[in-house]
Amino acid sequence: MKRIKAIYPGSFDPLTNGHLDLIERGSKIFDELVVAILSNAEKDPLFTEAERVAMLRATTRKYRNVTIATFDGLLVDFVRKHKAKAVLRGIRAISDYEFELQMALMNRKLAPEVETVFMMPAVSYSYLSSRLVKQVFRLGASVKGLVPELVEQRLYEKVNGRSPRRKR
Amino acid sequence: MKRIKAIYPGSFDPLTNGHLDLIERGSKIFDELVVAILSNAEKDPLFTEAERVAMLRATTRKYRNVTIATFDGLLVDFVRKHKAKAVLRGIRAISDYEFELQMALMNRKLAPEVETVFMMPAVSYSYLSSRLVKQVFRLGASVKGLVPELVEQRLYEKVNGRSPRRKR
Amino acid sequence: MKRIKAIYPGSFDPLTNGHLDLIERGSKIFDELVVAILSNAEKDPLFTEAERVAMLRATTRKYRNVTIATFDGLLVDFVRKHKAKAVLRGIRAISDYEFELQMALMNRKLAPEVETVFMMPAVSYSYLSSRLVKQVFRLGASVKGLVPELVEQRLYEKVNGRSPRRKR
Amino acid sequence: MKRIKAIYPGSFDPLTNGHLDLIERGSKIFDELVVAILSNAEKDPLFTEAERVAMLRATTRKYRNVTIATFDGLLVDFVRKHKAKAVLRGIRAISDYEFELQMALMNRKLAPEVETVFMMPAVSYSYLSSRLVKQVFRLGASVKGLVPELVEQRLYEKVNGRSPRRKR
Amino acid sequence: MKRIKAIYPGSFDPLTNGHLDLIERGSKIFDELVVAILSNAEKDPLFTEAERVAMLRATTRKYRNVTIATFDGLLVDFVRKHKAKAVLRGIRAISDYEFELQMALMNRKLAPEVETVFMMPAVSYSYLSSRLVKQVFRLGASVKGLVPELVEQRLYEKVNGRSPRRKR
Amino acid sequence: MKRIKAIYPGSFDPLTNGHLDLIERGSKIFDELVVAILSNAEKDPLFTEAERVAMLRATTRKYRNVTIATFDGLLVDFVRKHKAKAVLRGIRAISDYEFELQMALMNRKLAPEVETVFMMPAVSYSYLSSRLVKQVFRLGASVKGLVPELVEQRLYEKVNGRSPRRKR
Repeated sequence: MKRIKAIYPGSFDPLTNGHLDLIERGSKIFDELVVAILSNAEKDPLFTEAERVAMLRATTRKYRNVTIATFDGLLVDFVRKHKAKAVLRGIRAISDYEFELQMALMNRKLAPEVETVFMMPAVSYSYLSSRLVKQVFRLGASVKGLVPELVEQRLYEKVNGRSPRRKR
Repeated sequence: MKRIKAIYPGSFDPLTNGHLDLIERGSKIFDELVVAILSNAEKDPLFTEAERVAMLRATTRKYRNVTIATFDGLLVDFVRKHKAKAVLRGIRAISDYEFELQMALMNRKLAPEVETVFMMPAVSYSYLSSRLVKQVFRLGASVKGLVPELVEQRLYEKVNGRSPRRKR
Repeated sequence: MKRIKAIYPGSFDPLTNGHLDLIERGSKIFDELVVAILSNAEKDPLFTEAERVAMLRATTRKYRNVTIATFDGLLVDFVRKHKAKAVLRGIRAISDYEFELQMALMNRKLAPEVETVFMMPAVSYSYLSSRLVKQVFRLGASVKGLVPELVEQRLYEKVNGRSPRRKR
Repeated sequence: MKRIKAIYPGSFDPLTNGHLDLIERGSKIFDELVVAILSNAEKDPLFTEAERVAMLRATTRKYRNVTIATFDGLLVDFVRKHKAKAVLRGIRAISDYEFELQMALMNRKLAPEVETVFMMPAVSYSYLSSRLVKQVFRLGASVKGLVPELVEQRLYEKVNGRSPRRKR
Repeated sequence: MKRIKAIYPGSFDPLTNGHLDLIERGSKIFDELVVAILSNAEKDPLFTEAERVAMLRATTRKYRNVTIATFDGLLVDFVRKHKAKAVLRGIRAISDYEFELQMALMNRKLAPEVETVFMMPAVSYSYLSSRLVKQVFRLGASVKGLVPELVEQRLYEKVNGRSPRRKR
Repeated sequence: MKRIKAIYPGSFDPLTNGHLDLIERGSKIFDELVVAILSNAEKDPLFTEAERVAMLRATTRKYRNVTIATFDGLLVDFVRKHKAKAVLRGIRAISDYEFELQMALMNRKLAPEVETVFMMPAVSYSYLSSRLVKQVFRLGASVKGLVPELVEQRLYEKVNGRSPRRKR
């Protein structure tokens, strides 16, 4: 019997409910799932690497085969180092899809033995992205239901004691 | 440790090199892969169910965790009967992708415990489909390189001893 | 003040929850909404025109500004006869969208004074279509949650007293 | 009878003929149409907020139910403050469409009582965008026919008395 | 100096203004352009092969380097027989585009020395297709501006002396 | 007989095997092909204009009807100055395609006598872009097979004597 390990890479700045949904789905299909946080994906991340690790650890504690790691450099190098066989990616919109295919093809060129596997998050999260969450939060919207409660809390703390403006 | 079984459904009328490529990729990611031939997908198939089973058996013999089955009715009923956790589908073009998402969402509605997992065939097969293979073959083109050799042979036999017209 | 009447055309064979959702949304934006059933859209409809009218009437009774009508021939002729200013269409997937734009542009050419207006059904209905509903129903799946209860009942009656196989 | 007010938001930096076309179409469908200029959409706008307001006022004077306003912050807050029922958006290309759906779904999450309504500009404006207009203008191309005459004039004034290089 | 001959294949049942626009554009780029009518593309064409040849001949007479031919079988066989170097195809919508790429890739596989070249018809014809023209004509709409005048006339004759219902 | 000259514009920072493939295809269809390097397309190019010219010259020497030039300003001004009839562009993904159509329509508006002609690179290069090449190279991946050998060498020299890390 095989033991299939998959890597789920991303920036997770911050983790959304869409990410969490995909982690749960991935944890059912693979023997081990490593969530790999891209350290310096954006020039000016909202959360530090350590904060993102902490939030992911706390919210994925219940999945026994999920671990959290960080990486920079080439994704395929990380995958090989971990002796993983698959990269897990979520797909939602068409534009996602094109970018994802391009990355998957490049990764296949760089590491032909690694497969990229796509899964769909719940359709109710199909419009969610970290960028959009940050954008509406900065404009004063509630992000309840868009991110895990812990992330919501951390977002309010980031902006210095700001109290939630609206509940829904 | 888990034992993940996946179903790869399709008409396979006929099996193309794109299908075969995906079967190989799937056999590496899953513990067991059941290729499930939809019995009466088309009103007037070129190959009978038995012929399609035989061709798939012969060409996938080398993959020890791949088995061939047939089904009609709802895919999710077949998946549940086999206690499989995943449905494997290949994605290539955008139009595929939309149809695949629609089917995956419907299947998730009908059987929420079953995940659809997408993988990419080799890019050199991105334009291949059973329908297109049949169409160009009927117009007299060589299908060498588009389908496994055995399928090529069976195609010629189907059309009554016709000899290959062109080699490339 | 204006009095804006809009036409929502379709086959409605059968009405799905996605259609119903769009009718509700449209009834809030327009003063009058006429649901226009295309009489002979398909060669072999599952429900007769009269049955479709009856199901739409029963399920839209609560919307006071919604009426049900039937038409054949050119949509823009029907729109003009009703002195309506707008055609309402739902958009979900990309493939929809292209077809919808093509029809909207043709209708604009045929009747420049008529505007096509697009609205989105709830995202949870994004994968629904009458064709898919009929297909999975015929294969024995429950369509609970996909169509209004009345339509579910009529579907079972159509297939001669067949009892629901599964509840979810 | 209802009185439907819609908000047409955008940066309008600068207003193009595509925008103007959509404003005219919207003014026919809604009782009131508020063109809402996003104050600080871009870091370094070509025209100030006041200039954009002035150009929009001058070019939409003929539509009696169209008013011009500015906003920053969340669009749905502006919509609610104005007791509007709908957000009007133009759709042209597929890439637009995806982004528009994402925004519409997020806005529906933030304010479920607000509907986003999509209309098509004239097909001859399908390739127009403010960004592209600025880009070709900066490279010395005539923008006659791409923007209203007043905007063309203001563009020339911006770049300090530059005279039009080409007429077509 | 080279002498580049291109083939523009299609059903042309009937010829639309979009086709004609592309023929004109192609005639400027290539030394010779052969419009190749696919003889039996549809099971039940509206116009016979001879009628389609006649309409294309009459409307393209002014382009001195354009000739009309018919073919069945593989397109690449026709291209090779004519010693042409390129296949010309019009692209409009995304869905077109995907189908066109698939066909172009298959043709490249069958005849690597033949290039497929894509051009865009005028944007005002972007929604036109032979199928849509036939459909609205059958429902009683005027097709003025959608097809050449000669084709319009032949359409009326086909349906037995029917007189044009509307002018615009 | 005509003498068709086409312009193939781009940044070529750096030239990839996908570009080179398209240049070869274009050189077979047109009498003359001018590769036009956009001088200051990006704020901070990796290679200087002179370096890009040199690399293109060296790798296209074998195509006798291909010349290399540079431009800034409007593409259509360059096309007119060169008395070229066509602009050649490669299309790969859908997202490309939309952007390409938009540019082609704008260019047609600015210079109606110039046609944009699209061709497909080899499908094995469908995921390649200069940006992606630079990105994976910077992360330490081998770019063998993605760019011409000369470009690979120059990339290593750029990063100061760094030696290739991996061969495949």
